[in-house]
Amino acid sequence: MISRTEIATLGEFGLIRRLTEGMKLKNKSSQYGIGDDAAVLSYPANKEVLVTTDLLLEGVHFDLIYVPLKHLGYKSAIVNFSDIYAMNGIPQQITVSLGLSKRFSIEDMEELYAGIRLACEEYNVDIVGGDTSSSYTGLTISITCIGEGEKGKVVYRNGARETDLICVTGDLGAAYMGLQLLEREKSVLRRVDKELQPDFAGKEYLLERQLKPEARRDIIEKLAEEGIKPTAMMDVSDGLSSELLHICTQSNVGCRIYEEHIPIDYQTAVMAEEFNMNLTTCALNGGEDYELLFTVPIADHEKVSEMEGVKLIGHITKPDLGCALITRDGQEFELKAQGWNPLKEESHATEKSEESK
Amino acid sequence: MISRTEIATLGEFGLIRRLTEGMKLKNKSSQYGIGDDAAVLSYPANKEVLVTTDLLLEGVHFDLIYVPLKHLGYKSAIVNFSDIYAMNGIPQQITVSLGLSKRFSIEDMEELYAGIRLACEEYNVDIVGGDTSSSYTGLTISITCIGEGEKGKVVYRNGARETDLICVTGDLGAAYMGLQLLEREKSVLRRVDKELQPDFAGKEYLLERQLKPEARRDIIEKLAEEGIKPTAMMDVSDGLSSELLHICTQSNVGCRIYEEHIPIDYQTAVMAEEFNMNLTTCALNGGEDYELLFTVPIADHEKVSEMEGVKLIGHITKPDLGCALITRDGQEFELKAQGWNPLKEESHATEKSEESK
Repeated sequence: MISRTEIATLGEFGLIRRLTEGMKLKNKSSQYGIGDDAAVLSYPANKEVLVTTDLLLEGVHFDLIYVPLKHLGYKSAIVNFSDIYAMNGIPQQITVSLGLSKRFSIEDMEELYAGIRLACEEYNVDIVGGDTSSSYTGLTISITCIGEGEKGKVVYRNGARETDLICVTGDLGAAYMGLQLLEREKSVLRRVDKELQPDFAGKEYLLERQLKPEARRDIIEKLAEEGIKPTAMMDVSDGLSSELLHICTQSNVGCRIYEEHIPIDYQTAVMAEEFNMNLTTCALNGGEDYELLFTVPIADHEKVSEMEGVKLIGHITKPDLGCALITRDGQEFELKAQGWNPLKEESHATEKSEESK
Repeated sequence: MISRTEIATLGEFGLIRRLTEGMKLKNKSSQYGIGDDAAVLSYPANKEVLVTTDLLLEGVHFDLIYVPLKHLGYKSAIVNFSDIYAMNGIPQQITVSLGLSKRFSIEDMEELYAGIRLACEEYNVDIVGGDTSSSYTGLTISITCIGEGEKGKVVYRNGARETDLICVTGDLGAAYMGLQLLEREKSVLRRVDKELQPDFAGKEYLLERQLKPEARRDIIEKLAEEGIKPTAMMDVSDGLSSELLHICTQSNVGCRIYEEHIPIDYQTAVMAEEFNMNLTTCALNGGEDYELLFTVPIADHEKVSEMEGVKLIGHITKPDLGCALITRDGQEFELKAQGWNPLKEESHATEKSEESK
């Protein structure tokens, strides 16, 4: 039985002290962390400072019925790191703001923070600040990540040019299938009777992709080693279709991608079959993959073809050709952004989830 | 009658486009703002990068019964700017994350954003990013501010030395009295019958301090002009007592401040009398003043005495003398942090407010 200590016994400053105990700043750019009105960072003149932020709200972005707090902490940090890598940068610092309702204990917050700290250790990032407050409702997590990019090497979404090759890392759709699986088993997971835990054997990869995603630091490092600077890049958080349309709109180009080249894991395919879902649709619109989508000049064809974990899925065209998927049987379908839109009426963002603790 | 358009009609990207329409980057350090995975900033080698963040939750930090959305936006930005000034820095950029429940319309968000944009215009700050999401409950605002400090001129909380003078800007307790006043009139303000609006004549200053605070950029500029570098500094957000204890603890010193020197506005005094509250307690523990509290070497005595808007309220002592207030009749009282603690059981953070829209 895990003990439960009310957060009110510590107050804001006490809680922050407890959660950040023993933490040391690792990066040279981190001059001063938690404990003053602001953190102080020092970036050399040859670096650009990259800033990204994500707001995660209980019931909208996560469901504590099946998301363990430590995993949630880990993922909250990772999604921010992923945005920095997507600029061809390296994450350096984060600030962590938390809004906590009374149902959370100090031990809960230690779990959440353990996940955030683990992600920071693995990706060599410092926690330099934040804000902690009570909340009347669920859990609110707001993380801002600061990273560095070499001057002249930052990659935007707007640089894709005609004939560029379109590349994507890893595989797509697995995180989405993991979510479907967890949603299906929710009623079982909610039971107190622990004998009746669902059997996830053979589906571990899907759960891992949903619950403990990683950011593609390895790819950014490899691209640097190979001397490849993508012309455009972003991470796949809302789904491949949606992201590709962002790149094409901002670069004022069109694209063709090929269904047969979209990388999909075996477990994703099995699960789509089981759910009677169209596999390609899952891969195109699933979201939360945190893979990198990027374009390179055709001259880099050989280099990127040989890179492990990178798949060529198509090419950039003139803008008037639009954005399309070529199916296995040669048909052309216009790409549409059906990605996860947290403000749209029909998205799962509006399926109100129940209190879970 | 103001029209009401549902946010779902625009979606996340459409809403952001609408809110940020016509916005241009003003600062040299802002290379690339909204529209990519991260903002790109460029700080010269002689500057430190300052980062601060604040999370504001409906019902905990603000009550929409008496806080107009435009004022809320303005204040949300100002509280962050204030933290950057408190490091002897200049705010440059903010990111704005919003969690919105369905009761908010696009027009509501335009109001909120108009306030944020106004603050950014007046303080010369760029909005460079953010995140927008639906929420099941109230309004969540998370703002991160990035600022610049001259290398070697950033002021921390830990530099106060024995014999240093303690200075505070403006006056204290007014924002707190403004809050008391608004809380008292809440039942009246809630009525639909607009004929029955409360009479705030003669109390405008208190309301302004609560609803539309300003950050003390002017003081930071004057200190630079006069060639004064404070030894320690912070902004007064939780109350003078609490902040002074932070400075003394982190600097490992004690202090003596004098009741008769604490700057208090006439309207604050009248209101405290009306509420039958101890005026000094309000000034010491009220919070949300967003004034600057700083210490300077005794050699700067003449210069700071002559600075408009700055009051000398005491001096730093050896640590073993502790932290005390000397009352008008010469008694000594130990200073205690009774400032606003949003995680303590007894604070007003736990007075659950009602839905207001």
